[in-house]
Amino acid sequence: MIQTEVIERSTKGYSDIHNITDEVAKKITKSGITQGQVTVFVVGSTAGLTTVEYEPGLVKDLKNLFEKLIPQNDYYHHEETWHDGNGFSHVRASLLKPDLTVPIVNGRMTLGTWQQIILIDFDNCPRQREVVVQMAGEPRDSSK
Amino acid sequence: MIQTEVIERSTKGYSDIHNITDEVAKKITKSGITQGQVTVFVVGSTAGLTTVEYEPGLVKDLKNLFEKLIPQNDYYHHEETWHDGNGFSHVRASLLKPDLTVPIVNGRMTLGTWQQIILIDFDNCPRQREVVVQMAGEPRDSSK
Amino acid sequence: MIQTEVIERSTKGYSDIHNITDEVAKKITKSGITQGQVTVFVVGSTAGLTTVEYEPGLVKDLKNLFEKLIPQNDYYHHEETWHDGNGFSHVRASLLKPDLTVPIVNGRMTLGTWQQIILIDFDNCPRQREVVVQMAGEPRDSSK
Repeated sequence: MIQTEVIERSTKGYSDIHNITDEVAKKITKSGITQGQVTVFVVGSTAGLTTVEYEPGLVKDLKNLFEKLIPQNDYYHHEETWHDGNGFSHVRASLLKPDLTVPIVNGRMTLGTWQQIILIDFDNCPRQREVVVQMAGEPRDSSK
Repeated sequence: MIQTEVIERSTKGYSDIHNITDEVAKKITKSGITQGQVTVFVVGSTAGLTTVEYEPGLVKDLKNLFEKLIPQNDYYHHEETWHDGNGFSHVRASLLKPDLTVPIVNGRMTLGTWQQIILIDFDNCPRQREVVVQMAGEPRDSSK
Repeated sequence: MIQTEVIERSTKGYSDIHNITDEVAKKITKSGITQGQVTVFVVGSTAGLTTVEYEPGLVKDLKNLFEKLIPQNDYYHHEETWHDGNGFSHVRASLLKPDLTVPIVNGRMTLGTWQQIILIDFDNCPRQREVVVQMAGEPRDSSK
């Protein structure tokens, strides 16, 4: 059984970080899938997904990480193509990647207690983001 | 339903970047799967996969990123094992990872308009690469 | 068909690297799934998964990579929340991500000969880790 849903989020860019764990969990509950997996995928080339302990300190630390590894004000050849000033956004997104797959067991994702799913928008302007949430699996507990 | 295909590519190494989006899309069309997912996986320990807006500027920017984070001419302990000069290739590949999973909806991947799937070959010599393309899902539109 | 198993590992932290390939392969054999995929997922926010040629040189090189990109002794705002000294562990884990998906063909993962699955524990103390191994697919060779 496959169910596909979309989460929409208004983002501010510049490594804007959103905790989407609860929304993904609600989609799983709604789907009725208890054993399987969820693939989360952000549409677009200037955003990414990962997990983190979602608390204000680490939100700052992740922003600092991407600024350190891929500084906003370095020169990017992307500028020669579009002149839109977001070369850093694209490179950060390619490094982090847009996908995340989490197993579902007994109707719940196998995340740790302090492990949340986050969307990071790396673009240099506000965006309306679509995150595809696709669940595949079995509607009942097949282990019983 | 599961269908597995392989894409072969001759690569030049040194962060050689190939846009494989159209080939993956053709495998999906051929499979007849309209709702599900595709897992793309590059075989080998010196290459990786991600998405990017595929244009010449960002191709250069990604090459520069990996040279900055993991320079070719740094010392790598891998050299002590094989003396083959590609320690940087392995470390870059481990950071980027070899897998990418994309949802399929109505027979198409949920990529953004400017979001392409790329293979990056980090090795220090030409290679013949195999990229496994595995589609899992339903052959008709189950939402109807 | 979906089968979910757990691999447990005692880890030492500080980028402790464990080769879990054989254990994952045994779970696949036990499941009887010959065509499909395995999703490997480490529970918790201070560990990650990737692939590498597992040999002592690259194990050192990967440890060095994470110390270079995300130094243990930098200041992390995470410290303001918990005062537990492992901000570097969380940031490293978010960059590497906790998931890996590998296709299964004829009962075997499509890994290269020199490509192993590794768990990296980034925490600053010993941990008992759970790695979820979820296999989805068909119990017989559907290509015959």
